[in-house]
Amino acid sequence: MAGNLPVSPLAPEGGFPNLPAIAGVRFATAAAGIKYESRTDVMLAELAPGTTIAGTFTGSKTRAAPVLDCQEKIGTPSEAGAAIVVNSGNANAFTGAAGVTSVKAITNAVATATGIPEVRIFTSSTGVIGEPLPHDRIVATLAALVEKLDEHGISDAARAIMTTDTFPKGAGRTVDVDGRSIRIVGIAKGSGMIAPDMATMLVYIFTDARISQDRLQSLVAAACDKTFNCITVDSDTSTSDTLLAAATGASGVDVEGSDAFAAALAEVMDDLARQVVRDGEGASKFVTVSVTGAASESDARQVAFAIANSPLVKTAIAGEDPNWGRVVMAVGKSGAEADRDRLSIRFGNVLVAKDGRVAPGYVEAEAARHMNGDNVSVSVELGLGAGAAMVYTCDLTERYIAINADYRS
Amino acid sequence: MAGNLPVSPLAPEGGFPNLPAIAGVRFATAAAGIKYESRTDVMLAELAPGTTIAGTFTGSKTRAAPVLDCQEKIGTPSEAGAAIVVNSGNANAFTGAAGVTSVKAITNAVATATGIPEVRIFTSSTGVIGEPLPHDRIVATLAALVEKLDEHGISDAARAIMTTDTFPKGAGRTVDVDGRSIRIVGIAKGSGMIAPDMATMLVYIFTDARISQDRLQSLVAAACDKTFNCITVDSDTSTSDTLLAAATGASGVDVEGSDAFAAALAEVMDDLARQVVRDGEGASKFVTVSVTGAASESDARQVAFAIANSPLVKTAIAGEDPNWGRVVMAVGKSGAEADRDRLSIRFGNVLVAKDGRVAPGYVEAEAARHMNGDNVSVSVELGLGAGAAMVYTCDLTERYIAINADYRS
Repeated sequence: MAGNLPVSPLAPEGGFPNLPAIAGVRFATAAAGIKYESRTDVMLAELAPGTTIAGTFTGSKTRAAPVLDCQEKIGTPSEAGAAIVVNSGNANAFTGAAGVTSVKAITNAVATATGIPEVRIFTSSTGVIGEPLPHDRIVATLAALVEKLDEHGISDAARAIMTTDTFPKGAGRTVDVDGRSIRIVGIAKGSGMIAPDMATMLVYIFTDARISQDRLQSLVAAACDKTFNCITVDSDTSTSDTLLAAATGASGVDVEGSDAFAAALAEVMDDLARQVVRDGEGASKFVTVSVTGAASESDARQVAFAIANSPLVKTAIAGEDPNWGRVVMAVGKSGAEADRDRLSIRFGNVLVAKDGRVAPGYVEAEAARHMNGDNVSVSVELGLGAGAAMVYTCDLTERYIAINADYRS
Repeated sequence: MAGNLPVSPLAPEGGFPNLPAIAGVRFATAAAGIKYESRTDVMLAELAPGTTIAGTFTGSKTRAAPVLDCQEKIGTPSEAGAAIVVNSGNANAFTGAAGVTSVKAITNAVATATGIPEVRIFTSSTGVIGEPLPHDRIVATLAALVEKLDEHGISDAARAIMTTDTFPKGAGRTVDVDGRSIRIVGIAKGSGMIAPDMATMLVYIFTDARISQDRLQSLVAAACDKTFNCITVDSDTSTSDTLLAAATGASGVDVEGSDAFAAALAEVMDDLARQVVRDGEGASKFVTVSVTGAASESDARQVAFAIANSPLVKTAIAGEDPNWGRVVMAVGKSGAEADRDRLSIRFGNVLVAKDGRVAPGYVEAEAARHMNGDNVSVSVELGLGAGAAMVYTCDLTERYIAINADYRS
């Protein structure tokens, strides 16, 4: 299906970035024929012994079997090698006992093919919900996958995990720690949400840094909170969202206390999170919602998400309409502390409302000019405290409906 | 604008109902030219001395000046007559001090024209947010309005309060209490949400029953919780939602302890709430979401709203696609207690999923047949407890986007 969709107008220019190899990480992909024809749909990432692995996962109460399996394994101390196996085309979600059997069959076969212990084998599945995963087709590709493992396979890996994404997503940073270079790269898929049921956001990050599992986990969790947990396309949360970060340590550089490493990791995650939004279904505008002056950070977040998830705000942006009344509405409904008469709103740099009413001298044509661009920013100052938050989203267009209403019919 | 929109395909057959006059209530309407041309946009309802008035209002933190004024006045004991004045075309919301001035100017002028004390004069405004209300135009109509007051004017009143509604909404019930007839009628507007900024839900209910303000308030609040607070078109909450219920007592029948009256009042409210959903922007299906077996009633409600507000569920319904994976997703993200492996889902009477997986013998064509109708029901049994909730919504179509994105451009 993915191939039939035009590439998002918000896709990064220049295509998939030129990412460096990470010592200790090798990739391979295969076409297992799970659902799609004539494309790859399985990727294997092999990680050298000593790699630390951190992860964050969907909070859904109906999370899929592979997610539950990853959550059980993450943080288990081990010096052994590790592997990540991902398939597209079938989410292995809401598949009951069959789902658990499929995960077990795959991790068992990977263990046999690679010699890696099962507790270090992580799987993700993305695609249709509710259909049993034909895991035999994945198992059948493993011998060939192991043969093909290659340090330079990351862009193929990014393609193999796509469902209805319109472009593969990758990002990388190089950071100096103690005078030596550390590399961080990552790939992501998601925000297609246009698969027969729903797609999934999957993110895999690799670095040659040396870092403890505890520290990596806490860095990933903190950055996730400011990046992937600050994006929304349509407020619907997948059953399968998974982020895994693997640090091979192959550089020999200890980054345990490095702020530069933490910052670069967060940058890679931010970059990938923005790309996921840029591939939101039917998106024609990339939207940044900033909230300042809230009574607390959680209030700021609540207001930012109320704006970013409001269908009326999102359709106004699609229509290039600086409809600030709808932003007022979203602030009001958010549930966060707000005082109508202290509220200021900007579109881009144009002050549209101040102190609970239209700003003196406001000229709608100026705000409309900002709305015409690909990148729209909505800023709200609540005038109450120091709480701030930033959320990325996209507009809501007729293509979103066409994609999601007509797909299976 | 309203006149340009085709009537919703879900509008009740037979048009506006034939509602009886309520002794003690008289209506008049006028064309004040606030925004619309060639139509009425102000309605005055005059209520006889002794009328008790109850109300419920938006919880928005950015609520409009008329709402704040109503909230201050409601429940003030008085045996005097009362009045409700409503204008369409301008919401007098987010208008700062000017908004308060406008409310005061109108209530003051109504008091002068009618002799009713200002504390008993309630106003609502619906339409554009952020533009000062030209209240002089409303004041200029008052003398003529008072002249024209008529017991039989309710259908004209229902029309005058429309913004971009596609049909006027009315409902009535007659109920026997102690062998005598009590009448309850009501009108509503809303779910257009397609005004230049956003529309408002307004509801006015009238009865000739004799009842205390306290009791009326508690009946209205309880029924509101099960009716107007259980509908959603697009999850966006107005700055101006207002419901006022007036009991004139003219029948001389005390309904203080009458369950039949309470039930009939709730029926009128339920009827109006459904009509508001039937006029949801772009709606092509009326959707009933039932949740049972939740750990608590609030959990049931949370799950029902997660389903009813999910763009992916709503677009699937628009596409007549029995896409139960999206219902699973919505349950999972709701935040309520849920156990994937106890979940059952029905579309209409067709069991599609059971015990955390597709139901044995499920035939998609049967579920698809149910989806083809105008009335779609989605039922979820969580298998945890006795909590239950029912929410009404509509589907999400390309027309919703067209209406909301293109309106001002």
